[in-house]
This record gives sequence, structure tokens and C-alpha cells, in this order.
Amino acid sequence: MPTPARNSFPLAIITDFGYRDHYVGAMKGVIASIAPRATVIDINHGIPAQSIAAGALALRESWHYFPPRTVFLAVVDPGVGTARAPIAIETRAGARFVGPDNGLLWLAANKAGIKRIVKLTSPRHRLTSVSATFHGRDIFAPAAAYLWRGTSISALGPALRPPSIVQLDLPRPVESAREVRGEVIYVDGFGNLVSNIDRRAAKQFGSRFRHKSLSVRIERGAAMRMLDAYGDAPKGAPLAIFGSFGLLEVAVRNGNAAAHFAAGPGSSVSLVAAAGRT
Amino acid sequence: MPTPARNSFPLAIITDFGYRDHYVGAMKGVIASIAPRATVIDINHGIPAQSIAAGALALRESWHYFPPRTVFLAVVDPGVGTARAPIAIETRAGARFVGPDNGLLWLAANKAGIKRIVKLTSPRHRLTSVSATFHGRDIFAPAAAYLWRGTSISALGPALRPPSIVQLDLPRPVESAREVRGEVIYVDGFGNLVSNIDRRAAKQFGSRFRHKSLSVRIERGAAMRMLDAYGDAPKGAPLAIFGSFGLLEVAVRNGNAAAHFAAGPGSSVSLVAAAGRT
Amino acid sequence: MPTPARNSFPLAIITDFGYRDHYVGAMKGVIASIAPRATVIDINHGIPAQSIAAGALALRESWHYFPPRTVFLAVVDPGVGTARAPIAIETRAGARFVGPDNGLLWLAANKAGIKRIVKLTSPRHRLTSVSATFHGRDIFAPAAAYLWRGTSISALGPALRPPSIVQLDLPRPVESAREVRGEVIYVDGFGNLVSNIDRRAAKQFGSRFRHKSLSVRIERGAAMRMLDAYGDAPKGAPLAIFGSFGLLEVAVRNGNAAAHFAAGPGSSVSLVAAAGRT
Repeated sequence: MPTPARNSFPLAIITDFGYRDHYVGAMKGVIASIAPRATVIDINHGIPAQSIAAGALALRESWHYFPPRTVFLAVVDPGVGTARAPIAIETRAGARFVGPDNGLLWLAANKAGIKRIVKLTSPRHRLTSVSATFHGRDIFAPAAAYLWRGTSISALGPALRPPSIVQLDLPRPVESAREVRGEVIYVDGFGNLVSNIDRRAAKQFGSRFRHKSLSVRIERGAAMRMLDAYGDAPKGAPLAIFGSFGLLEVAVRNGNAAAHFAAGPGSSVSLVAAAGRT
Repeated sequence: MPTPARNSFPLAIITDFGYRDHYVGAMKGVIASIAPRATVIDINHGIPAQSIAAGALALRESWHYFPPRTVFLAVVDPGVGTARAPIAIETRAGARFVGPDNGLLWLAANKAGIKRIVKLTSPRHRLTSVSATFHGRDIFAPAAAYLWRGTSISALGPALRPPSIVQLDLPRPVESAREVRGEVIYVDGFGNLVSNIDRRAAKQFGSRFRHKSLSVRIERGAAMRMLDAYGDAPKGAPLAIFGSFGLLEVAVRNGNAAAHFAAGPGSSVSLVAAAGRT
Repeated sequence: MPTPARNSFPLAIITDFGYRDHYVGAMKGVIASIAPRATVIDINHGIPAQSIAAGALALRESWHYFPPRTVFLAVVDPGVGTARAPIAIETRAGARFVGPDNGLLWLAANKAGIKRIVKLTSPRHRLTSVSATFHGRDIFAPAAAYLWRGTSISALGPALRPPSIVQLDLPRPVESAREVRGEVIYVDGFGNLVSNIDRRAAKQFGSRFRHKSLSVRIERGAAMRMLDAYGDAPKGAPLAIFGSFGLLEVAVRNGNAAAHFAAGPGSSVSLVAAAGRT
């Protein structure tokens, strides 16, 4: 098979392998051997170790910024070597996803519209010797590199019929008369606490309290105002904002909200109607 | 506009986004969508969170090693969403800089010779939906990618006349009869303490003490000898050296000077004349 | 010399520079200036500071996954500026290695089959101004970039005859009647404890105990079963496995073995014959 001169889409990698070891490097060596002209992009490798939910969320939040036919290689794989299947997914949006069938690919692939799923069994499209501990290097990287080169997804293994995968759904916020009660689903590197409350839920709740402004509480803490920019709060003060995920998040200006509130994934986040109007 | 086959200069990124999250990945996705043939280089993403001074210094220390027309995308942006302007700078040295006008670009752009500055207002050269929290992805990455592709800087927005930006100047060392008194301006990942005392200041001071050697003190600590290589000190011993910034720095051989001296940005560094001659 | 359109092999970098600073970025700028069309791959920059052994092992474990003529730029260089030589190595396997002659390149280059070694002395193939503290940027990056471009290794400096370099050999396990006694030689970012006991040694030892299964102990701790996949152990339980290095390693399922056992490089790892059969 001839190698294409250059594609207009990259091969993007996201893992929980961290930056201490050569593991990501070995994967990139495998890709460079199969698809030397691929533009390889690191999304990030700092997903908390073995946190499938954090990886799934990071992939959901980044895939749609990439060119349509991008091949995503995602590896957060605590079950490596066990029965969980290695898969590749083709989507209606064009994006392709390669990784373990453990929920990691679900949020992104579901948004992109799952068209076809194959189980990666083809011996010609993996390394000759497959370890029990590093399928990222031995199975997933070769599959992604072949897809990037133009190998048909159906060459990589048999299609799953129906095309179903392990689902991983985020907790949903609960709305009552007095509040929308959600929770922290992601803590970023700045310490910002990202909740599962989206703009639509907030707008709908707010429409019932036209004469009041909305405020936000972490667990039973003090109410915070909703602001439009981090810089609108005084230095060191906490604030609530719709952040870059399009979700309600709590931050501390020039500080770290996770440390400030001693909060993390699972901490409650409530949206309530405050006394005064904005 | 046709996409160039390949330019001989890259698009280089420097941020304080860290490696935990997908934020840098989302920016790279945006770049790959606009300029799929760009060679994208990570300078680093480990600038301490919201430390404009550290970012400005890292950019000053790295830009001139890159090819002349490199496009630098720099994001350390605690004021995102507030009145600080998003800008792009063209320089006499050829380098282009894109980022927030908060001092981050000043040290490098000033060295490169500022020729033109535009405010990034063109709606055609940013994402359709611009968040209040992530201009790196929504405004700066698109602008940098268009510049790399060959879009004229003047297409990105109106020129600032005169072309002035927020300045961020490093503290200067003070010379007295007995010493040159500077301070730590950067601590690197090895724990090396980089001061603001350059070779010229040291040479000029030293020329007044021909019969004495020079030594260095951190705060009121013991005097250290100036050496030519880290390896010239005994293992575990502190030393002073002109490091890779061309600035006087204090290190510990096979150790960490920041931990050894419990010192950091702002700690005093004094260059004094010692009793004996080298 | 004309720059090749694109080679089918990359330039791969491995260092202990970490991710906090712009040091790797400056090296990449130098490479982009000399070889703008090179595909540059980060193996990793998280080698523990100044740990030549960890760097040598990471390079040995990754180089063979790369295309044959890959140029490896490796920098863990506590002796920078002292008498240790800067070198480039050509190997029978095709790989080229550039870095300090301090043992860092030995494990990989020896496996690849050393063919020729030159000392990097050519003034035309380094930066005009060479610092005493950053040969990665000033000497090694230019040499690697020129090699990638097609410059002959012999143009970079005089050949060492015989082609000998500083060797760094890993400790070997000791086999007695009752056990194979090895030690931890690497701790990865997941906390997995990688030992120096390979499959062959284990197999040979095991062949003497046909009616017993093998188990593993860290220091004087409890015996662990050998498993085929991390996921075969209960959550939180320790296990022994042949990992992605092809070496016996001790892990904790969904946990961190280094923390669990308070163990690290040098901790003893014993392979013993257990009472029952598998």
C-alpha cells in the first residue's frame, strides 16, 4: 500500500501514561514506523492514572476542535490484557477513535455519531509480539497508524453488530424547586472545579426566578456570584463561571479552587436563587 | 487562500496550561484545522500558573533559537475575558508573537524589535463562538494559525498607533562599592537559581578588583566560588556559574539549589570580591 | 547542502529537562533552524534529573520501536562542561545516537551494534557560541539536526579508534538453589517496580521446579503470584507480571506498587518456588 504524501488530518493521542516514562515515546516510534508522514499531536498524557472518566471527558471536550477525519488514539486501560476488547470506531462526523472498549471512547464517539465499530483482531495490523501489559504500543498505535495511512477500518477486524460499546455516562444534575444540585466532574490543572451543570439547565432554572440573581455553592459553603470572566473577581476570591467546557465551574481568581474548597470529583455544586437581583 | 505546501518556519507554543488537561490539545486541534501543514512545536507548557514574568522570561530565552519567521503563540492569561487586548506583533527580526497584551510578549518582542502591533478583532480569524475563559483556543490559536498560513497581520485587526504594549521589566541589579546586589528571577526545574546579574555587570565589577576573585552569596549565606562547569564542584556542593541564560546562577552539583537554600524568586544574590585571587 | 524534502525517519529526543522550563523548546528551535523539515518526536523529558541509568534504560526500551535510521538525541548530562566527550554513534541496526559519553547511550547503542563513534568537535556543526551549561542546545541538537539532514557522521568530528564509550551495565540477578535474587532497576509513573529479572532467567529457574509454581517477593514481604494481566488481580492487590520491558515487574492493581511497598531502585526482588502448583 502506498503511503500518502500527507493527509490534511492528524493522528492525535491522549493517554494516562504521564510524562515520566518513555511509554508515549514507544507508541510514537511504532506510529512513525508505520505512518512516517503522519502529523502526530499530543492532546495530553496527564489524565489521572487509570481514570477512565477523566479521559472520556477530556476526549469529549477536545475531539471536535480537530479536522474532520482525525484519528484519535486514546489509552486509559486498567483492564489491559483482560477480556475488554480493543476497538476502532468510525463516526458520522468523520472522526475515528481507537482504544479499549471500557467507556473511554463513549462520550466523544456518541457525540460524533457511531457508524461502525470493529474489534482489533487482525494480526497484520498489530506488532508481531503482543505483550499483556502494553496494548497502547502493541495493538492500538499500529491500528491508529494504519487507519491514518488509509487502511480500511474493516481490515482491522470484524464489525460488532450491533455497533455497541461500553457506555460511561456522567452523573446528571437534579433540579428541585429551590436549586439545581450537581457535582464536580473534573478538576483541571489550575484547580478549577468543573461541574455537570450546563448553560441550558442554568437558564431554565433561572427563568423561574426573574427577580433574583443566581449564585453557586460548593457543598455547604458560602454563595458565590456568577461572573463573566475570572478577572472580574477580586484577587484571591472564589467565583462561579461558565468555563471552556461550557459547564458551570468554580474558580479562585489567581488561585486554586480545589485547594481553597478542599473539593474534588463528587463534591456537590448547587445553583440557587439569591435574594437580590443582579 | 491556498495553504502553503510547507513553510520553513514552525508555529511554536508556550503556555502555563500544564500537562494534566487537554487544553493545549484543543489549541492544537484548532491549529490543525486551519493550518494542517504547520510544524507545531511545544516550547513548554509548564510555566507556573498565571506567572506572566516566568512566561515572558522563557519566551525571551527561547525565541532567538528558532527560524526567523517563526510564529510564537504564547498564553499566560489570568486576565482572560477582561479588558486586556488580544494582540499580534510583527518584529524586525522576523519573529511574530501572538498572545494577550499583559506583559507576556514584551521581553521577547522588544529584543526582536517591534514593527507593528494589531489588536485581534477580526471575526473571520477566530472561532465562531468565543468563550470568556479560553482565548488561547478561541482567539490566539486561530490568529497564529492564519499568520503561519500567510494571512497578513493587518487582516487580523486594526494596528495600534503608536505600536505600544504593556511592558514588564525585570528588576535590575544594584552596584555599590562592595557588591553587585541582584535577585533570583527564575527557578528552573533542576532547582537552579537564575539571577538578574549578567556577564557584563560582573565583568565591570570584577575589573575593579584585579587582585581578588569574585564570589557569590544567596541572602546572607556562605560565599560560593564562581566555576566554569557544574561538574567542577564536588558532588552536593553549591556553586555559582554563568548558565544557559547568560546570567549568573547558583546551582548545587547533582542537587537542587532552590531546596538547598530555601530560596526562590526575589531572594537576594550578591556578587562580592573575595580575599584570595583565583 | 540541499535539505531533503522529507525523510522517512524522525529525530527523537529524550532528556531529563522536565516540562517546567523552555530548555527542550530551545533545542527544538535549534533543530528547526537547521532541519526545518524534520519530524521531531518527544520520547520523554521526565527522566529523573541527572539519572543516567534511568535515561539509558528508557532509551534501550524505546529505540527499537522507531524506524531504522532514526536519529536519537539523548541528554542526561550532569557532567556538562567537563571532560566527558560529546559523541555521535552509528550502529549496525541503522539507528544513530547523539549525546554525552557518560553511559547514557550505552545500553541502546550496544544492542543496536556500535559501528562508528565520533567526537563532536566540528565548529561548523554546533552553535557559534557554546555555553558551559547547555550542550543539549549548543552541541547535541545541532549535531543531531545535521545528521538528520544527511551530513555524514564523519563530518562531525574525529572517529574514536577503537570505537569505545563509557559503559553502564545494569546489575544482574543472582541465582541460587532457592531463588533468583534481583533488584528494582526502574520505577515507572504508575508506581510499577521493574526488576532486572528477565523471562529467560525465570524460565530456566522455573524448569527446576516443575511441580511448583513461582512467586515473587519484594524485600522480605509476602509472596505474590505471577499473573498474566494487571486485571487478573483483585482491585488494590499486588501482583507480579512480565511487563512491557519484558522484565519481571511488581504492580498493584489500580494502585501504586512503589507507594504500597515503599520500594524503589535497589529494593530486592526475589523469584522463589511456591508450595503449590499453578
